[in-house]
Amino acid sequence: MTLIKFIEIMAILVGAFSGFIEARRKRMDLVGVFTVAFITAFGGGTLRDILLDKRPLFWVTHQEYAIAIFVLALVASPLIRTLRQIVSERLIVIADAVGLGLFSIAGVSAALAADMPIFIASMMGVITGIFGGVLRDIVCNEVPMVFRDGKPYAICAFIGNWLFLLMGKYGVPDDFALWSSCLFISGLRLLTWKFDMRMGR
Amino acid sequence: MTLIKFIEIMAILVGAFSGFIEARRKRMDLVGVFTVAFITAFGGGTLRDILLDKRPLFWVTHQEYAIAIFVLALVASPLIRTLRQIVSERLIVIADAVGLGLFSIAGVSAALAADMPIFIASMMGVITGIFGGVLRDIVCNEVPMVFRDGKPYAICAFIGNWLFLLMGKYGVPDDFALWSSCLFISGLRLLTWKFDMRMGR
Amino acid sequence: MTLIKFIEIMAILVGAFSGFIEARRKRMDLVGVFTVAFITAFGGGTLRDILLDKRPLFWVTHQEYAIAIFVLALVASPLIRTLRQIVSERLIVIADAVGLGLFSIAGVSAALAADMPIFIASMMGVITGIFGGVLRDIVCNEVPMVFRDGKPYAICAFIGNWLFLLMGKYGVPDDFALWSSCLFISGLRLLTWKFDMRMGR
Repeated sequence: MTLIKFIEIMAILVGAFSGFIEARRKRMDLVGVFTVAFITAFGGGTLRDILLDKRPLFWVTHQEYAIAIFVLALVASPLIRTLRQIVSERLIVIADAVGLGLFSIAGVSAALAADMPIFIASMMGVITGIFGGVLRDIVCNEVPMVFRDGKPYAICAFIGNWLFLLMGKYGVPDDFALWSSCLFISGLRLLTWKFDMRMGR
Repeated sequence: MTLIKFIEIMAILVGAFSGFIEARRKRMDLVGVFTVAFITAFGGGTLRDILLDKRPLFWVTHQEYAIAIFVLALVASPLIRTLRQIVSERLIVIADAVGLGLFSIAGVSAALAADMPIFIASMMGVITGIFGGVLRDIVCNEVPMVFRDGKPYAICAFIGNWLFLLMGKYGVPDDFALWSSCLFISGLRLLTWKFDMRMGR
Repeated sequence: MTLIKFIEIMAILVGAFSGFIEARRKRMDLVGVFTVAFITAFGGGTLRDILLDKRPLFWVTHQEYAIAIFVLALVASPLIRTLRQIVSERLIVIADAVGLGLFSIAGVSAALAADMPIFIASMMGVITGIFGGVLRDIVCNEVPMVFRDGKPYAICAFIGNWLFLLMGKYGVPDDFALWSSCLFISGLRLLTWKFDMRMGR
């Protein structure tokens, strides 16, 4: 298994896991737990692809992810309290930060491949990174957390996306631009988390 | 009028009716009543078609359904309390179960026709069957009922969809597979309703 | 700058402004304020284009609008209280009424250009006119205002759309039909606002 594949799986699982937790908090049943986990993991990329009119969707061509979340919902659902004790807060935040970087830059790349203008591309990257959580909160009947907690989550993605776009513009090799931007987003997110930074309102 | 046309109309009307009731409970006005009824009746199929990138949408090519719901919203809205007394709970559940079977299998067929892998096809069937109600609840600012009441509604559709997919795989004639799966879903749903079965959480 | 361009910009800014206000009322942060403003301004047209399968989306080809809302969110967000005092209620209602007329008729035109049947075209016009606000309210975790306040907002758009469709059918020149229908919707909306008319429920 290549590194990127591993990170991708980690990011999806972390998304699904955050969906599990939110769905359980809302006392949802098995159907709700699976659906909310699925929406959290794939909602951002799906919305981006619908806006770009890109098909087939990621989770359609890789049904193994849908099956994995399905099995996890069946198996892990009763174990979620135990899981939350085993998996430390720190590990979840790290995996989530890695996912944010990866998904955001993947979103920008997809938008550029679809000939989007650059500001739109930077937005598509943020949408990919955060709208899984936004849709999760809407389905769970909450005002989306990422819109109100004042933590610079989307902002980290936004800045990193522009780093990536600028590197592309100034001829930095694709591979380097991609990986360094992912790392930048993940690192910035972890830094702001470590120091509990907030934006003014 | 053929049987399938009749069942289809019944299923759409039942969806619209459940939207009417929910919208009235939320004290919505005429615009809300029509929109929520429309979303409940067509939301599942519309979401499926957007995910599959299939156009034109069902209600676009059959505008008579949209017109029918519009007229019903105009006429039936003041009469909804009377209607709820005339139409028995039992009749609604039966029509809804028939609709669940029909919509789910129609969703699986549409997904197969679009070359979806089978697990995704089974999901698309469930989406078609339940997301009208999910979207209705989101617009009405509720946590979707189907995600939290623990009743095996989506599960019935899911099992029936796999019955349909397996019959297809093992060469059972299309027509028989389709109708028997629809009947299976409707029957299973009515059975679980009759005995008030719940899933564990 | 042509007149239509000016009106279009006004309509988008009014949409964004109503999103700003709602997002601030919900105590959202910068990310929320921008996103909700964006959704309010472009949500209706985006939903219409997804339903019609039309791409690229309006705000994709005109990224200057997205940038403008972004800058406004950065700059105006702290000034929103001051802005609400400077900009009178009356001005907002007028600009919003103009926007409703323009967006609705633009929606009908887009639907006709995509060969939609006429009832669907009239619905697409209303969707374009009102769903920005509907999506804003859903993201802000409220039952959509336009579905429950009993004010004839969507109704004005609906009637004007039919006026436009009928003029088209009876050979009235396109330009005249378009502008007079826009004016009709805006005027009717202002009239119903002036006299605080409500629909019965």
